[in-house]
Amino acid sequence: TKRYSITLLPGDGIGPEVISVAKNVLKLAGSLEGIEFSFQEMPMGGAALDLTGVPLPEETLSTAQRADAVLLGAIGGYKWDKNEKHLKPETGLLQLREGLKVFANLRPATVLPQLVDSSTLKKDVAEGVDLMVVRELTGGIYFGKPRGFGTNEKGEDIGFNTEVYSTHEIDRIARVAFEIARKRRGQLCSVDKANVLEASMLWRKRVTAIASEYPDVELSHMYVDNAAMQLVRYPKQFDTIVTNNIFGDILSDEASMITGSIGMLPSASLGESGPGLFEPIHGSAPDIAGQDKANPLATILSAAMLLKYGLGEANAANRIENAVLDTLNRGFRTGDIYSSGNKLVGCKEMGEEVLKSV
Amino acid sequence: TKRYSITLLPGDGIGPEVISVAKNVLKLAGSLEGIEFSFQEMPMGGAALDLTGVPLPEETLSTAQRADAVLLGAIGGYKWDKNEKHLKPETGLLQLREGLKVFANLRPATVLPQLVDSSTLKKDVAEGVDLMVVRELTGGIYFGKPRGFGTNEKGEDIGFNTEVYSTHEIDRIARVAFEIARKRRGQLCSVDKANVLEASMLWRKRVTAIASEYPDVELSHMYVDNAAMQLVRYPKQFDTIVTNNIFGDILSDEASMITGSIGMLPSASLGESGPGLFEPIHGSAPDIAGQDKANPLATILSAAMLLKYGLGEANAANRIENAVLDTLNRGFRTGDIYSSGNKLVGCKEMGEEVLKSV
Ligand SMILES: CC(C)[C@H](C(=O)O)[C@@H](O)C(=O)O
Ligand SMILES: CC(C)[C@H](C(=O)O)[C@@H](O)C(=O)O
Repeated sequence: TKRYSITLLPGDGIGPEVISVAKNVLKLAGSLEGIEFSFQEMPMGGAALDLTGVPLPEETLSTAQRADAVLLGAIGGYKWDKNEKHLKPETGLLQLREGLKVFANLRPATVLPQLVDSSTLKKDVAEGVDLMVVRELTGGIYFGKPRGFGTNEKGEDIGFNTEVYSTHEIDRIARVAFEIARKRRGQLCSVDKANVLEASMLWRKRVTAIASEYPDVELSHMYVDNAAMQLVRYPKQFDTIVTNNIFGDILSDEASMITGSIGMLPSASLGESGPGLFEPIHGSAPDIAGQDKANPLATILSAAMLLKYGLGEANAANRIENAVLDTLNRGFRTGDIYSSGNKLVGCKEMGEEVLKSV
Repeated sequence: TKRYSITLLPGDGIGPEVISVAKNVLKLAGSLEGIEFSFQEMPMGGAALDLTGVPLPEETLSTAQRADAVLLGAIGGYKWDKNEKHLKPETGLLQLREGLKVFANLRPATVLPQLVDSSTLKKDVAEGVDLMVVRELTGGIYFGKPRGFGTNEKGEDIGFNTEVYSTHEIDRIARVAFEIARKRRGQLCSVDKANVLEASMLWRKRVTAIASEYPDVELSHMYVDNAAMQLVRYPKQFDTIVTNNIFGDILSDEASMITGSIGMLPSASLGESGPGLFEPIHGSAPDIAGQDKANPLATILSAAMLLKYGLGEANAANRIENAVLDTLNRGFRTGDIYSSGNKLVGCKEMGEEVLKSV
């Protein structure tokens, strides 16, 4: 049997509920494929702030760094919203991404035939959408220096940040995106604002240069404002999108809402080597936390991405993905994706149904 | 009779066609309200590049600065896409905004009952959407310094830009937005990324401070990624949105596509004093240029904004707005908003029909 060590970071709000369900699914799918897991559960986000005073304790980061993969629930909540920057749950998440050097964030947005009615888009626009946003995750304006507060020449207070990309950073995320596009439908759309920003001009230049290594992938470029429109107008035009950290933050959330089932969407964050970070793209949903109402499928599908992209265990990953589809086909729905004629279940029961299908 | 001087900047692509139609509508609506216009038509964008070698000739800018208001068609096209930055049509537009000091960009996104089917969103989601994006237009990452290209400590090439806002810049755009919200439904949503960016933290702090001057307006805050989702999920929740230059670029385009009729949407850019800049939010559409296919209504409605926000001539503005609605009610449609049962017309004929209704 193969053995992997997985760091679990339940985090805040609905995080613990969905992680506990996903852990069971991961265990079962693994055991059916001769895989054994050891789990280390560590505090992170608001939970860590309450326990240790910081959003990412050193021990949590070092445990995660030694693991084979990291599965995160969700972080944040009203309670910590007014905290100073270094004491925000979000800061812990950024430190985790930086500490794990996971520069490539993969965010699929897929409209499942079973859930096409959940989209606010017309059926013919939404059905068949199957795109992947590859977001640069450890650079750009999120981490660029200088940043901070100061005064300008007129004596007015200012707040400032730096959007900066190096050739190295662009080249490596471009390669990840080209590799992914190659395994999908062979189309890569690079999104930037090269008509205005120098950082985007370099981005476009390097992505274009890297394209010569991937003659089988068709590269196009789009300005970010147009991309925000095109996702609403005709989302099926997109296969793989590659973009910077802040544009990726915005566009991947927009794309996920276009599917109408944000409770279904997983994500993977990968580095050159070392453990990947896997998490649902939804937030901690403090309003429904502890009520057994959360949809655990996004986290379960994140566990599938963990198996596939993090451990190279495609068979176990497929088991989970098929189990989720089977469970949907059998009519089980949490509240967020419920429509009449189906069976409304809570977080735990949804997990049990998926286990039956694994 | 009152007299106003208007600088017309037809620009590129469909720009000249829509400007020529809108000019006639402006003339007629004015004359019926005892207003006379003098027009100066000046080159701008790609047209100016071809004619003079620069995208915004000095004489164009100085003419615009002396005018009472400026009406722009559209700029840009494939021909100039590969130009160096200082020779891009877009650079001329940014110079014009800076030169006119029009820091407040107003972008309404309204779903007209006549056109609700043009939206890709489901009818019940799209109908009744009536929001206004107030975008900061002369600051932030578009103009922040330092910017450019260089090398980092590892010797790699970098491209960089600075996102920077001063209290003064935030306060004045916030006041414009509060004033507008006050005249609308009294709700202002400020969009930022204050969980990550210092520039956004200052933004949130100042907008919150200015709110005390407007006790009748309800202020809320939203992160930009969430705003991009909420516009798709439930756009009716928004009344007035205020945000920075780059987020406003992205969100206003997304919002405009949600209406489904981008050929209908005007915009106004205003400064403290001096002439405002009015333009349709659509681009130059080089693929249909010169074919009499363009929808002139966005430019005609921009002329209405020019009368209302630029000259304080609400009566003439209302004449135009009502004429547009009347023309739609009479069933006239350009190709972009055509649906069966209506009368398909070209750019010129649409203009003539609007003239009949003025
Ligand atoms: C919580 C926040 C810092 C984070 C981000 O902006 O990256 C989130 O929005 C995300 O997309 O994972
Ligand atoms: C053409 C471009 C420079 C411009 C911008 O980004 O401001 C356009 O997208 C707009 O929104 O008016």
